[in-house]
Amino acid sequence: MKIAVDAMGGDYGPRVTVEGALSAARDFGLEVILVGAQDLLRQEVRRMGRPEAGVTIVDAPEAIGMSEGLLAFRRKKRSSIRIGAQLVKEGRADALVSTGNTAAVVTISQKTLGALRGVDRPALALLVPTQKGLTLLIDVGANANCRPHHLEQFAVMGRIFMENVLGLPQPRIGLMSIGEEKGKGNELTKATFERLEAAPLNFIGNVEGKDIYSGKADVIVSDGFTGNIALKVSEGVVENMLIMARGEITRNLLAKVGFFLMRRHLRRLFRRLDYAQYGGAHLLGVNGVCIIGHGRSNPTAVRNAVRLAREYVRTGVTEKIKKELGRLGGVTEGAKA
Amino acid sequence: MKIAVDAMGGDYGPRVTVEGALSAARDFGLEVILVGAQDLLRQEVRRMGRPEAGVTIVDAPEAIGMSEGLLAFRRKKRSSIRIGAQLVKEGRADALVSTGNTAAVVTISQKTLGALRGVDRPALALLVPTQKGLTLLIDVGANANCRPHHLEQFAVMGRIFMENVLGLPQPRIGLMSIGEEKGKGNELTKATFERLEAAPLNFIGNVEGKDIYSGKADVIVSDGFTGNIALKVSEGVVENMLIMARGEITRNLLAKVGFFLMRRHLRRLFRRLDYAQYGGAHLLGVNGVCIIGHGRSNPTAVRNAVRLAREYVRTGVTEKIKKELGRLGGVTEGAKA
Repeated sequence: MKIAVDAMGGDYGPRVTVEGALSAARDFGLEVILVGAQDLLRQEVRRMGRPEAGVTIVDAPEAIGMSEGLLAFRRKKRSSIRIGAQLVKEGRADALVSTGNTAAVVTISQKTLGALRGVDRPALALLVPTQKGLTLLIDVGANANCRPHHLEQFAVMGRIFMENVLGLPQPRIGLMSIGEEKGKGNELTKATFERLEAAPLNFIGNVEGKDIYSGKADVIVSDGFTGNIALKVSEGVVENMLIMARGEITRNLLAKVGFFLMRRHLRRLFRRLDYAQYGGAHLLGVNGVCIIGHGRSNPTAVRNAVRLAREYVRTGVTEKIKKELGRLGGVTEGAKA
Repeated sequence: MKIAVDAMGGDYGPRVTVEGALSAARDFGLEVILVGAQDLLRQEVRRMGRPEAGVTIVDAPEAIGMSEGLLAFRRKKRSSIRIGAQLVKEGRADALVSTGNTAAVVTISQKTLGALRGVDRPALALLVPTQKGLTLLIDVGANANCRPHHLEQFAVMGRIFMENVLGLPQPRIGLMSIGEEKGKGNELTKATFERLEAAPLNFIGNVEGKDIYSGKADVIVSDGFTGNIALKVSEGVVENMLIMARGEITRNLLAKVGFFLMRRHLRRLFRRLDYAQYGGAHLLGVNGVCIIGHGRSNPTAVRNAVRLAREYVRTGVTEKIKKELGRLGGVTEGAKA
């Protein structure tokens, strides 16, 4: 299996992505294709002191910055993201992994790989750990403005993903809203509620922000703006609690001792909750596997994102979604309604 | 000072609201007016074994359930929320405190008390503790669907609140969005960004979900759907961390000892983060003080909500907002644009 890694992406640059990609190649017995400025990448690979077995470099002289917009995505024809996506398109790689500019990866992958039939808007799906297992949040940031049929498509893709990748039959689909009753929410969620009720889905109704981590639903559907806010708020709360906990604790000797005894367990807990660690989001609905990791990914997170890509390639999730969506004429028609 | 307490509100019913209200009356030297089914309330007051000094009961034979909608708000003319709001309207109470159905309190208070001149939509404002102090989130749930000029009005009310209640000159106003750059966000935030840039505000641009608790902005503006999601997600993360922490910790003896030594400090930390504890949200923009507490409020939280009402009455925040909004013809005009 060959995984293309956008080596220019991420807040920390090639040094971190190369280190993560190389350790994935070594640990998971797969080939990584580092995509980026080739001289720089050669140098980084050498610096790591690793033999180059299992590692190829494909030159992409341009890089898209974390805050660049649509114009740059179009203008930079030889960006690492675009060339990475082309490798997947041409079958030279099985998946693309990027920790770069999310909007750029979404837009360029969609354009290069194409959307699956029946999908108007590919969406970012993220598995988060809950009290009971894993819940898929979709969309966590690909589509800031959505209409009800987009959310219905997200729900269908989420269902197929959970059934086929996690082997979970009839996953419970929740709609992220404010208040559990049918009438609660904004215009978008109210109209979406009607559609999800009528769709062949195990729709359990609205779920609230507090339910994300309780495991109440297996798939939680939202527009990409709301989903991204939910994700970033979670991140902020965890970080803030760590900082505030440190403040509380260092004031008192016994508490310090307590912290010392607990630290390994706390660290494990925070790792479970730190989504930079557990890989990345999957761009569902494009014709290929594309994983987008957190911009702040460290080498371990990059390595985990590559592992996630491997899992998705193995399970053949893209083919499964393609097949199921083909079978469900209804979604395509719904999309046109 | 007299504070009307909707004694029928909240998930736990009159027993809890009465207990909280009585302890506020005792501790803060104010009068509470318990509004609700009078026989029931008399019984609860007796059960508490407290003298009735500082406590009045006003009969309201109807109660609005936590999941009832608009129809019930209109039909129930003698609900505890409506009668409580009327007490404020008629000057017989200085403020209303309710832990009941948020939509009902917002709708009925707005109708009964009226909105201030220049305010199209009163909004729920909540002070949350951050690493650096307090940040005001506005709106956290009064308006699920907003237009840009509503968000501009929220920003102006937030500024006046922070300047006058917290004595913070030129508070930094942030717009909740996804991504910090101007172009990032959904249609609503992009249009709002333009308005906030042009307004006489210390606008610092977009802030992300992760910035809520960092203290990056003093006021964070959002529509009520997004704000409520952000709040409920925070709540869910804190709860979930507690549950997951317990799981991690009880597996290991040393960790258990550590937890024992730290528990007082952890408890204090979680209390700081538990917004059920620190009072409630303020309905800014109505002609009177109205505090909406969390449905799950325990007696301490009800007591804190009454204390918050007292603070807001003392600072004369309603009059100050009224005066400033009167001075700012621009907001009213903006609202008509």
